[in-house]
Amino acid sequence: MADATASNEKHLMLFSGRAYPELAQEVAELMGQELVPTRAVTYANSEIYVRFQESVRGSDAFVIQSHAAPVNEWLMEQLIMVDALKRASAKRITVVAPSYPYGRQDKKHLGREPISARLVADLFKAAGADRIMSVDLHAAQIQGFFDGPVDHLWGLPVLADYVKQKYDTNDITVVSPDAGRVRLADMWTDKLGAPLAIIHKRRDPNLANTVAVHEVVGEVEGKTCLLVDDMIDTAGTMTQAAQALKERGAKRVIAAATHPIFSGPAAHRLNNSGMEEIIVTNTLPLKTAEPIHNLTVLSIAPLLAQAIKEVFHDGSVTSLFDGQA
Amino acid sequence: MADATASNEKHLMLFSGRAYPELAQEVAELMGQELVPTRAVTYANSEIYVRFQESVRGSDAFVIQSHAAPVNEWLMEQLIMVDALKRASAKRITVVAPSYPYGRQDKKHLGREPISARLVADLFKAAGADRIMSVDLHAAQIQGFFDGPVDHLWGLPVLADYVKQKYDTNDITVVSPDAGRVRLADMWTDKLGAPLAIIHKRRDPNLANTVAVHEVVGEVEGKTCLLVDDMIDTAGTMTQAAQALKERGAKRVIAAATHPIFSGPAAHRLNNSGMEEIIVTNTLPLKTAEPIHNLTVLSIAPLLAQAIKEVFHDGSVTSLFDGQA
Amino acid sequence: MADATASNEKHLMLFSGRAYPELAQEVAELMGQELVPTRAVTYANSEIYVRFQESVRGSDAFVIQSHAAPVNEWLMEQLIMVDALKRASAKRITVVAPSYPYGRQDKKHLGREPISARLVADLFKAAGADRIMSVDLHAAQIQGFFDGPVDHLWGLPVLADYVKQKYDTNDITVVSPDAGRVRLADMWTDKLGAPLAIIHKRRDPNLANTVAVHEVVGEVEGKTCLLVDDMIDTAGTMTQAAQALKERGAKRVIAAATHPIFSGPAAHRLNNSGMEEIIVTNTLPLKTAEPIHNLTVLSIAPLLAQAIKEVFHDGSVTSLFDGQA
Amino acid sequence: MADATASNEKHLMLFSGRAYPELAQEVAELMGQELVPTRAVTYANSEIYVRFQESVRGSDAFVIQSHAAPVNEWLMEQLIMVDALKRASAKRITVVAPSYPYGRQDKKHLGREPISARLVADLFKAAGADRIMSVDLHAAQIQGFFDGPVDHLWGLPVLADYVKQKYDTNDITVVSPDAGRVRLADMWTDKLGAPLAIIHKRRDPNLANTVAVHEVVGEVEGKTCLLVDDMIDTAGTMTQAAQALKERGAKRVIAAATHPIFSGPAAHRLNNSGMEEIIVTNTLPLKTAEPIHNLTVLSIAPLLAQAIKEVFHDGSVTSLFDGQA
Amino acid sequence: MADATASNEKHLMLFSGRAYPELAQEVAELMGQELVPTRAVTYANSEIYVRFQESVRGSDAFVIQSHAAPVNEWLMEQLIMVDALKRASAKRITVVAPSYPYGRQDKKHLGREPISARLVADLFKAAGADRIMSVDLHAAQIQGFFDGPVDHLWGLPVLADYVKQKYDTNDITVVSPDAGRVRLADMWTDKLGAPLAIIHKRRDPNLANTVAVHEVVGEVEGKTCLLVDDMIDTAGTMTQAAQALKERGAKRVIAAATHPIFSGPAAHRLNNSGMEEIIVTNTLPLKTAEPIHNLTVLSIAPLLAQAIKEVFHDGSVTSLFDGQA
Amino acid sequence: MADATASNEKHLMLFSGRAYPELAQEVAELMGQELVPTRAVTYANSEIYVRFQESVRGSDAFVIQSHAAPVNEWLMEQLIMVDALKRASAKRITVVAPSYPYGRQDKKHLGREPISARLVADLFKAAGADRIMSVDLHAAQIQGFFDGPVDHLWGLPVLADYVKQKYDTNDITVVSPDAGRVRLADMWTDKLGAPLAIIHKRRDPNLANTVAVHEVVGEVEGKTCLLVDDMIDTAGTMTQAAQALKERGAKRVIAAATHPIFSGPAAHRLNNSGMEEIIVTNTLPLKTAEPIHNLTVLSIAPLLAQAIKEVFHDGSVTSLFDGQA
Repeated sequence: MADATASNEKHLMLFSGRAYPELAQEVAELMGQELVPTRAVTYANSEIYVRFQESVRGSDAFVIQSHAAPVNEWLMEQLIMVDALKRASAKRITVVAPSYPYGRQDKKHLGREPISARLVADLFKAAGADRIMSVDLHAAQIQGFFDGPVDHLWGLPVLADYVKQKYDTNDITVVSPDAGRVRLADMWTDKLGAPLAIIHKRRDPNLANTVAVHEVVGEVEGKTCLLVDDMIDTAGTMTQAAQALKERGAKRVIAAATHPIFSGPAAHRLNNSGMEEIIVTNTLPLKTAEPIHNLTVLSIAPLLAQAIKEVFHDGSVTSLFDGQA
Repeated sequence: MADATASNEKHLMLFSGRAYPELAQEVAELMGQELVPTRAVTYANSEIYVRFQESVRGSDAFVIQSHAAPVNEWLMEQLIMVDALKRASAKRITVVAPSYPYGRQDKKHLGREPISARLVADLFKAAGADRIMSVDLHAAQIQGFFDGPVDHLWGLPVLADYVKQKYDTNDITVVSPDAGRVRLADMWTDKLGAPLAIIHKRRDPNLANTVAVHEVVGEVEGKTCLLVDDMIDTAGTMTQAAQALKERGAKRVIAAATHPIFSGPAAHRLNNSGMEEIIVTNTLPLKTAEPIHNLTVLSIAPLLAQAIKEVFHDGSVTSLFDGQA
Repeated sequence: MADATASNEKHLMLFSGRAYPELAQEVAELMGQELVPTRAVTYANSEIYVRFQESVRGSDAFVIQSHAAPVNEWLMEQLIMVDALKRASAKRITVVAPSYPYGRQDKKHLGREPISARLVADLFKAAGADRIMSVDLHAAQIQGFFDGPVDHLWGLPVLADYVKQKYDTNDITVVSPDAGRVRLADMWTDKLGAPLAIIHKRRDPNLANTVAVHEVVGEVEGKTCLLVDDMIDTAGTMTQAAQALKERGAKRVIAAATHPIFSGPAAHRLNNSGMEEIIVTNTLPLKTAEPIHNLTVLSIAPLLAQAIKEVFHDGSVTSLFDGQA
Repeated sequence: MADATASNEKHLMLFSGRAYPELAQEVAELMGQELVPTRAVTYANSEIYVRFQESVRGSDAFVIQSHAAPVNEWLMEQLIMVDALKRASAKRITVVAPSYPYGRQDKKHLGREPISARLVADLFKAAGADRIMSVDLHAAQIQGFFDGPVDHLWGLPVLADYVKQKYDTNDITVVSPDAGRVRLADMWTDKLGAPLAIIHKRRDPNLANTVAVHEVVGEVEGKTCLLVDDMIDTAGTMTQAAQALKERGAKRVIAAATHPIFSGPAAHRLNNSGMEEIIVTNTLPLKTAEPIHNLTVLSIAPLLAQAIKEVFHDGSVTSLFDGQA
Repeated sequence: MADATASNEKHLMLFSGRAYPELAQEVAELMGQELVPTRAVTYANSEIYVRFQESVRGSDAFVIQSHAAPVNEWLMEQLIMVDALKRASAKRITVVAPSYPYGRQDKKHLGREPISARLVADLFKAAGADRIMSVDLHAAQIQGFFDGPVDHLWGLPVLADYVKQKYDTNDITVVSPDAGRVRLADMWTDKLGAPLAIIHKRRDPNLANTVAVHEVVGEVEGKTCLLVDDMIDTAGTMTQAAQALKERGAKRVIAAATHPIFSGPAAHRLNNSGMEEIIVTNTLPLKTAEPIHNLTVLSIAPLLAQAIKEVFHDGSVTSLFDGQA
Repeated sequence: MADATASNEKHLMLFSGRAYPELAQEVAELMGQELVPTRAVTYANSEIYVRFQESVRGSDAFVIQSHAAPVNEWLMEQLIMVDALKRASAKRITVVAPSYPYGRQDKKHLGREPISARLVADLFKAAGADRIMSVDLHAAQIQGFFDGPVDHLWGLPVLADYVKQKYDTNDITVVSPDAGRVRLADMWTDKLGAPLAIIHKRRDPNLANTVAVHEVVGEVEGKTCLLVDDMIDTAGTMTQAAQALKERGAKRVIAAATHPIFSGPAAHRLNNSGMEEIIVTNTLPLKTAEPIHNLTVLSIAPLLAQAIKEVFHDGSVTSLFDGQA
């Protein structure tokens, strides 16, 4: 007999980098699984070493890493994990990057700049990734940077459900803190049935972080202003927006964003901004030196767990978002 | 002697597809060159055949095609030209696509959609293109879809110079006809020193062209409203925006856009919109059944000619835009 | 437990472009399946949009498109479908192109020509196709243009069975209308046990369609001459051959070809050629302005259905042709 | 100063494998160059080792190898040479394969066969070849197997000029020894202004070399029959054709072919065939055990030298053949 | 219903090249399988032709070839087999190369050399191989030459178990015949708990096989010296080492190596070396003109069979070696 | 005129990352050039941003980065620089990595490990690097990990010249601190004409840094022992070797290594080791908390400058090392 047969079962395996194992652990528990035991160390010379402690041959592997600071460390760790999986004959490798690294460097603003978000997609590909799963890409076009399937999950429903339960949507105005975020604010207005306002600022193209003027376009007086963004990094944009809204008579200011980067002066600024509530998810671990008051963290793990299940079982990720994704 | 040497001159050659040879001709004339004689026919069975009538060996080839309707014909013609150049030993092949085809399909809005703008980049690559030159990509992120250099030219200076000369900028409000175009409007406000307003409409995600409401966010009463966009296609968005502005008391409405697609009802709608002037460039040929009144067409050829020169001579394209590109 | 398992079933899904949905429908019915509901539109600006209305994740997808005129439209539509399938995590994608587009541009006849048949293979690959299925490639070498499996089906048995049932093979001479088609005629002589004749014409290499002389090589007087080719396009070659055969005393002339392109003057020429019967398959839809008399159309759908079944079930396509394919 | 400049001269370097250094030497001499000194050895364990004895950095390298028997040795040697050139920073690498290896395995005749001619193109690419130059490919479609430029040279003019000078073309009938070679015979009839005849044989598809019947289609009685083919391998086809022609009253039989493979019984068969002259080129070395009487060998070196010059100087190879190539 | 399902069984198929079918046969028998019937011939012109005589569609294919002399023949045969499998829709293709060809050409010793071991990996990839399985690579780094999984099996346990059973390990000194093999000898010392010695020779870098001096570093007097290497080729290194050990007072000398290349003078040298036993595996067939006395051949087939089983069933190859591989 | 010509000069441009700008500066000065002004920042969120402040179009770019700790930062910075150069139309990009990152992870020691040195080569390729230049790769086989030219420079002559000038070579024994480094020690013995000794230690394969026993193989009593290695990392191997040599009666111990990683306890260990001199190059910056006594640092910049010149001018890098490289 020239042909031996065997049943061809699929094996789901979950892996976690060291950036934020608690999130991966939460995803695993929601799925009734365990993370694959992994030895990962950073040597004295700063090189990273990774080895899986179980056979991964033939597995449908999901490699979960949160790209918190130091982002280059965690990106490189994930690339090394993918390389090891490829060489160990994993069948399919999905990079799970809840907060896509270098997402804001998605185009050339000036000549002779990199497009680091594309570079990251190329690096994942070079290492051996077959698929990417991410939440709220800074620009949805980043999906097109990867030559393969990208499961693009939306954090907005998670955030919006919370806002709708806690606040009176009749009282809310959705505010984009920036001309570049109006598309996102637009989606919020649909979700809440609320009007739109915009903070219009002008940047000096030669000075990446210097903003000249802040105009409020739209009606905000006496309203609960909901500032929305995909991420809060140093919180400069958010807190300047909050101040401008207050000056224009806003009753109160709250903020919602998916990715809590909270780098540098973020905590200090937010604590002194007078905002009533800052709502984020846990796509990234919280690591601020000083705690942020009025911070609400919603878990993204149920969404990730659900999406991984759909991918593994050839279900529909789109169905999780009523057709969008 | 095991080594013969020869001087290694660079040869610039310009090629044109059949979609809009007048533009390529204008570029060639500005550069003091002639287009390479090319035999291109569409056979009775609708297949395209192309042959160059001069040796192209070793050339630095620029293949100019305007992606007017029928866009698939002209895209395929350009791919065939690139394939022929590759096989005929051209040294470097730059696709010049003044109006990038399928630029609006730059992300998945819904599940199971293509990302056709990425597909187009992949097709150019597969055919043998080394570089792409384009004007005002619908999303700047499309630069990142191509695995190689993209010279992204800005039509805005051409349009803005005209507007500044003709209109009193103190009287102007820049208006984004759509939440997705605020970034572009933002750049116009910088250029003109003018305030911003936005038309906020909500689309039904399942009905691609159905718009529910049109709100004007910002002050427009008594102003010269300048609607800006990268392209005017069926002109529905533009003319609805114009109407909303008139209803909110705008003194007059003018429009500026780089790419004059003008498909279907565009001419009729624009002629009945009450807009005082529509300003476009000639990245695409005008082919409307009925002429559009109040239309001003500015030539993009000088910009293309200048950029091709910089590329050929290893100069700086960025310098044409004060560092941006 | 670090490993969840699931059974790994295969899912066959059939997709159809808009060029000739009747053929795809016939294939689906023969297989007891339905085509996947697909939204495909051509926008006013001539760009094509496609979306699948069911989850295709993990599917073994067959994308059926007939490359009738306008061939570039339908090719581009199929590429877009493949891109959408790739991004939606289809497991394997087979392009079914019953009549391979640009098949005649399979080599450089002159310098600085494209090899568009190779380009088409590269475009399919770039879009994400894993495999190609086609019927009667113009040159069998086109199989080698694709970097992957090509299921090359033979239409000859379908046509020959019909001829054998209807005509007395002792009376038949198989005639190649052209020096380039003798290989095919040779296969027919084997199939029918009939002698061979050739129409020998000389083309002017600088004028692609101009034929100088027509000689008949071989015995045709008093015979039923069966002209064979892989396709009938403008029918110039066929009808000139028929006339030459009549002049040399042929009793009657019939023709058999797989692909009914029938472009331009084909119908008119065939109707005035005096041929008794023209036998084709339905790899392409019939779209001639005037009906073709004496036309017999045999369905290729059973062959396609059978081949798709073999591919899906890891059977043997070769076995359908006694080892050839 | 952040930019140092240097003149950018091109350097042509010629390399030869060990299969037929005399041909490469002749090419070099015609170009007034020397072959790059190369150390090439076959170790006792049958592995090949190659090293160039001059710097090849930045060179425009042409690697000449004749794919005589043992073809796998010489193919592998050429691949190793290309790898060494790539790693030694040659600027451009052209494989010169006067007689393309595995050219006859250009399609699948039966299921589960390789397409070795495509494989060879892939191997050249994988090793690092940028371009291929070859003479009289068995099928012109092989040009499309390589993803890059192929300079396809025609040996026919060399052979035909000789025939025209020596024989009375009014007396000649061009004969294709096989249905698959009629296209080539067709080109000869154009070149000589002579009529065409065909040997029609039927092969058993399961027995690659067994021919059933030999019919002569066309007039040959009392004529000088010129049998033409791209290659003569075991000479079975040729000598059986010659016999059939003699039986049908041919006055005399001569043969012309580009590639003198002459393997196995070729010499014996040809010497006993009664053919008056066998005309070939030297794309391959002559290595028959017994000498072939009536053999005329024309040198292909001038054509190769001319083509390499045109490629190096960005001239036109097409011009060597009046537009064809 | 738009979706037909079928169970998705895996099919293991074993293929053998013609270099050493006995080994493949032994592997197949140990697995209770038959080799896939294959027609492989070398034509008179030295080209190889291969066809599988059963459908291989969807199979998990293992292509076993021993790279004995003439290595280029057998390498090319294996590449052709892989190409045929790829085009016949095998699902996954593993190249089984028990003795990796060109393994010693794993780096550039001098400028302008190839890295043929990397070239071989690239050729396997280009032909369509997904995976490689090999035994005792000359340098373990060759694993990194292939862009995909490499199952690197260790022959050392097979050899060491034999040595431990037959000899008193307290009496043994492990000797590296060469500075480049100390790493391997080091592993043997761990395995046997024996001390280490080294033959230190200096090569002339311009003369690949000329060794100047032989020093013995370490204590060998009165010991059973076990010379270890990955391969024995011409046996020059081994027999010179044996002589040096004898001169330094070794009681007896035995040798163990995985790959029995035994080319050129190997048999003669070994028979005259005074070594008591030479222990090898059968990764290569024995083909020496004169028989080698005192030769012990251990079968590698059980290891290959076990490893193929693990790969097919998604088990662990690493587990066969206590975590190493 | 369809063809404009221009002279085609080459432009050399040098770029430096931020890891060790002093080395790049030294190289530039030796070449009489300036580094291209570059804006490089690490944002608060730890992402890196790079922009070149001059046009780099058409340049022959050399991107110098020392991969000191934190190695992932500097590797990622270099990848971003390469991406920016690629997109800005640099003509050729050479990564200059004097100390190749992750060089020790060059093979799988255990199952399910990555081969990070290959991964790094793939990442450079994915970012757009055409070539790599490095000094003293941990394993020369790493050259074969990159699909393109690698200029592998030898630091040994720099170190050996110093040793020969300062010490009496008749008194020296070269000592390999490890079985894996004997090949390197072997090269030193050739260079100095000195005998060889080896420290033979056995590692526990499950505990990467735990060494069991240290044996000295060879004569060291009363000698000046020169310990040689490619790098000194935590200095554990070196200092244990030094101690073992002292215990065996070495007169004095000195050490030479190319790459001064000096991580963790290195400085402390070396200062307490009793070694008389530690000789290194400056491929990496010195950053130890406590200064290392008896440390001699030789500059590698002249070698890099010379090699870059040879590469730019199409000279010979091999010639710098008498044929080796």
